[in-house]
Amino acid sequence: MKLIPFFLFLLLVSPAQASERDGDCLVCHQQSAAERQLQTSAHSGDLGCADCHGSDHDAIDRGDSYVGVDVCGRCHQQQLEEHRKSRHGMGLHAGWGCTRNVPGRDKQECRFCHREGDTQPISTVQCARFIKQSSEMGQIGCNRCHMIENSCAGCHTNHRTDARIVKDPRVCAKCHMGPDHPQWEAWQTSQHGTLYNALGAPDAPDCQLCHMPQGSHDVSGGLTAPPSGKPYAQQKATDQRQIMLDRCQECHVRGFAARELQNADAVRLQTLELVDQARAIIRDLDDRGLLDPQPTKRLEHPQRGKELVLDGAMLYEDISHIESLFFRLNKYAAAKTFKGAYHQNPDYTHWYGNAEVKLLLNDIRGEASRLRERGGQGRVGVNGEMDEKALEVLQRRHQRGELGDSEYAEKKRLILEQILQ
Amino acid sequence: MKLIPFFLFLLLVSPAQASERDGDCLVCHQQSAAERQLQTSAHSGDLGCADCHGSDHDAIDRGDSYVGVDVCGRCHQQQLEEHRKSRHGMGLHAGWGCTRNVPGRDKQECRFCHREGDTQPISTVQCARFIKQSSEMGQIGCNRCHMIENSCAGCHTNHRTDARIVKDPRVCAKCHMGPDHPQWEAWQTSQHGTLYNALGAPDAPDCQLCHMPQGSHDVSGGLTAPPSGKPYAQQKATDQRQIMLDRCQECHVRGFAARELQNADAVRLQTLELVDQARAIIRDLDDRGLLDPQPTKRLEHPQRGKELVLDGAMLYEDISHIESLFFRLNKYAAAKTFKGAYHQNPDYTHWYGNAEVKLLLNDIRGEASRLRERGGQGRVGVNGEMDEKALEVLQRRHQRGELGDSEYAEKKRLILEQILQ
Amino acid sequence: MKLIPFFLFLLLVSPAQASERDGDCLVCHQQSAAERQLQTSAHSGDLGCADCHGSDHDAIDRGDSYVGVDVCGRCHQQQLEEHRKSRHGMGLHAGWGCTRNVPGRDKQECRFCHREGDTQPISTVQCARFIKQSSEMGQIGCNRCHMIENSCAGCHTNHRTDARIVKDPRVCAKCHMGPDHPQWEAWQTSQHGTLYNALGAPDAPDCQLCHMPQGSHDVSGGLTAPPSGKPYAQQKATDQRQIMLDRCQECHVRGFAARELQNADAVRLQTLELVDQARAIIRDLDDRGLLDPQPTKRLEHPQRGKELVLDGAMLYEDISHIESLFFRLNKYAAAKTFKGAYHQNPDYTHWYGNAEVKLLLNDIRGEASRLRERGGQGRVGVNGEMDEKALEVLQRRHQRGELGDSEYAEKKRLILEQILQ
Repeated sequence: MKLIPFFLFLLLVSPAQASERDGDCLVCHQQSAAERQLQTSAHSGDLGCADCHGSDHDAIDRGDSYVGVDVCGRCHQQQLEEHRKSRHGMGLHAGWGCTRNVPGRDKQECRFCHREGDTQPISTVQCARFIKQSSEMGQIGCNRCHMIENSCAGCHTNHRTDARIVKDPRVCAKCHMGPDHPQWEAWQTSQHGTLYNALGAPDAPDCQLCHMPQGSHDVSGGLTAPPSGKPYAQQKATDQRQIMLDRCQECHVRGFAARELQNADAVRLQTLELVDQARAIIRDLDDRGLLDPQPTKRLEHPQRGKELVLDGAMLYEDISHIESLFFRLNKYAAAKTFKGAYHQNPDYTHWYGNAEVKLLLNDIRGEASRLRERGGQGRVGVNGEMDEKALEVLQRRHQRGELGDSEYAEKKRLILEQILQ
Repeated sequence: MKLIPFFLFLLLVSPAQASERDGDCLVCHQQSAAERQLQTSAHSGDLGCADCHGSDHDAIDRGDSYVGVDVCGRCHQQQLEEHRKSRHGMGLHAGWGCTRNVPGRDKQECRFCHREGDTQPISTVQCARFIKQSSEMGQIGCNRCHMIENSCAGCHTNHRTDARIVKDPRVCAKCHMGPDHPQWEAWQTSQHGTLYNALGAPDAPDCQLCHMPQGSHDVSGGLTAPPSGKPYAQQKATDQRQIMLDRCQECHVRGFAARELQNADAVRLQTLELVDQARAIIRDLDDRGLLDPQPTKRLEHPQRGKELVLDGAMLYEDISHIESLFFRLNKYAAAKTFKGAYHQNPDYTHWYGNAEVKLLLNDIRGEASRLRERGGQGRVGVNGEMDEKALEVLQRRHQRGELGDSEYAEKKRLILEQILQ
Repeated sequence: MKLIPFFLFLLLVSPAQASERDGDCLVCHQQSAAERQLQTSAHSGDLGCADCHGSDHDAIDRGDSYVGVDVCGRCHQQQLEEHRKSRHGMGLHAGWGCTRNVPGRDKQECRFCHREGDTQPISTVQCARFIKQSSEMGQIGCNRCHMIENSCAGCHTNHRTDARIVKDPRVCAKCHMGPDHPQWEAWQTSQHGTLYNALGAPDAPDCQLCHMPQGSHDVSGGLTAPPSGKPYAQQKATDQRQIMLDRCQECHVRGFAARELQNADAVRLQTLELVDQARAIIRDLDDRGLLDPQPTKRLEHPQRGKELVLDGAMLYEDISHIESLFFRLNKYAAAKTFKGAYHQNPDYTHWYGNAEVKLLLNDIRGEASRLRERGGQGRVGVNGEMDEKALEVLQRRHQRGELGDSEYAEKKRLILEQILQ
């Protein structure tokens, strides 16, 4: 801007010039906040309404002229590329399934997955939880976050360009909060967040400093595990860790930072073991036909039918009470434990996380005990002790791949020996 | 103030003059924060202690000289009128029942419902939950919010007049937060709240911009449903919606805002249907005598005796476990779902709200299944399938008005046919 | 500073001088944030790296040269003394037990309890919950708060001295938040917190104003009960109350403040009664052998073995479902009720606190009813009604000291009379 001669500058930002180009729009939209915000934005003078929205007013009104990332990417190419290769770039892929056959669905939803005039979905990834929701819940509850793949406005807002908005950690909070991934809350009450509150940026670490260094839109750099916490391949995890340590090193001795993150890694893996314990208890009940109700006797899972689903496609509705407890343990409490640990927050790691995982594990064990007694199998446990269903359970575990062939054969032999005694 | 001659201004705000009028008070209260705050407030010079508190020191000390809304309303008439016709004007009515006969109750509570010397209550509305509390819990836990009907100080504080206090959304948070109506939290982490955090008022929407435009004290304008979410009469709802859309239009295209609020309406009604499902399960258990304990075998409801209460007068204490789950579903999770939706917050709408409603519905179904088995009625369900109690249950539903006469007659005929087979 | 001649001032803060002393360190650490922060801190020029860290680089690297409170206390003697006599001074004592014999434990933990070269622990207080955790969870989840006994950096951070950090209430939030003691959240949304948000210090009360007046590091002044809420000895409670009222009086009439705190006292004691009710239900189940599983049939408590533990040493893991409910009631909900009341927060006192205590009490009663039926003891209750186990239960209550000798004898006589009828 410094080098632009003054008369050219005047021309660029002149309201007269923008008004001329947007004349048709401003007949009605002169008083709008959009217009006011655009005029005071960095886009003022450069961009008029039609540059982003097109000039087909009917299409705009129908929602067919969506200002997606491609529109912004015409000028902001690097940011779009970084965005697309990050997890933010799979926002919709993670959150959407095709809803074509769901009755009463708003057909305008289509443009989230399909480019105009293209019947091929951008993605075939489906979210069972999303498919179960009403169109309105999907829009407010799911897409307002998951639309990030195709929307710069989710963070930047529509017509403003004030950098204070996107440099504020609060802008991340809208999605990175709540029962399932309270990164914002965990950061906010960590020592990092405390420093930010007292001193502000750039003297204190905020979301952007660690996850978007130098304004990079690749928010996934330096992460060593996906949201579920399952381990990445070793090489990938090691490489990403070095990237994060480079950032930590701005303030911390590298060795200290490495130890801190290793501790969080350990907490993550220990937590996933507790999740596995809980999952095994419920799978065993399913194998024995003791869930109330069994998956075969309730509404079908939209992708897996009458199967028990305890993985990432698990629903929170139309499941049994003990699965309800597991959902809270796995999706809420376990996530808080390790996301709290990576954000150096004692309360999220320990009380909201670890203690809640273990309290829910008590509850799951208690409910399992009740269900076993109810089914007349009071003495059986998750480890496949001798009982009338032992062989059947063993077979199902073998089928699921939890037991290898030789382990299966050995356990089967032991059970048969006991039966034949 | 601009037109007041300078010497008159001096006279009005002169500490000497205030000190003279408040001389008796200042002998003891000279060093008090109240005095300091008053002297630096907009009331300085205009008002002395006795103007609001009266001059009967014993009465003040006993709490008999309460500075209620009438005192402030002497000068701030318009604000008082707006306040009285809004929901804030029924703060105490919503939160109070007569506690005259409750043992050990602090008699000073009386002035919340009765004007001095008047035995007629201002209101006959009663709150069963309030009546069950100790006097101290009532004062801290209930009245600190519900006193708003009769107190300007709840928001404005006692002696300050600094407008920053009441223009800060945090002032609303004290009451509009928490498990049952987290409007503050939902706004705070919505895009509206994010903008407010980054840019501050007036560039971003806060509580006051939408709910108290131009400083209006009628906080209920534009609301289309009561706190329970039950629909308003159509005409009222339509009229109020237009009022809110006028406010939205300051920043948004009216059509966009209308669609957003319609989505929230739909989420609200869908959520209430889930609440109704849960309520029907518990009513059915009560009809069959399967609650543990039944309402007839526990402490009486203070207003409805030995009846099952699942409406707005529902208690959270001295109820059965399944009702405890329903209280959380209805009062907490359902409220978060639709209040979250109206405040455009994905996390409150979906995770804190919708997911929790559905998780609790699983839990309620599981507990209902257990209670039915325990009562030897393993196969019966909420839809009144054929069983030994079917006729009795049908009769109770008819009495409650859930079944019309002809529907009742038809269902009764079907059951009798089956019995006589 | 004003009196120091300018050339001396130059000498004191001269980077050259510090660099000279820290020369060896700066060869590698020149670019470090620690160095940058130190140079802009109040310690700049006065202190070099070795003054706090020592000069044995290997020891520093091994973590054997910890900068604990003793290091800071060389200069800040008064603060250290105040800190040591406050509850903060027992941070580690509250949170630690000796972990020597716990397998796989990181031996560097030792320095939290032992001064170098000293085998005597600083404290023998043990925390059963801590002992059960992995080393990593202990470090992130427990010690990041409980290390306060031996660390000034927990609040002050390591190399900065900016007073804004420790004057910000957020610095307290890191530990005083969450399910078990949300003092920060309760304050933040009380009228005190609202005023702070709108006006800032010193016009509004923050954590430091009431709990660290004039910068005192004795944070326990004016507290009338320990974290569990159990009453202090009367004289101590009365003395401490006067100390707090002196602070309240800065802004409030003493009589008003005294009444408010008395109300909170009453709420505290009423809440503890509800906790006792819940505890008695579970003890009774244990006496009758009805817990699932009984303490004798599960992992041993690390300090009390196969005993039922419902006091401050209670675990949240490896317990039965009904104990899980009690943990939430006692440690989370009850604490919110009375800590909310002392911080004048209606929502924490009532909804997060009182309502949750009572909802959980319903759940505990429901589960107790189920466990009694399961054990074939459907009709028995917590009050020791006549039943086949009545004598045994009575004996155990006598042994625990819940019944005095004469009360025991009388109740025993009544039961025997009934049996002999």
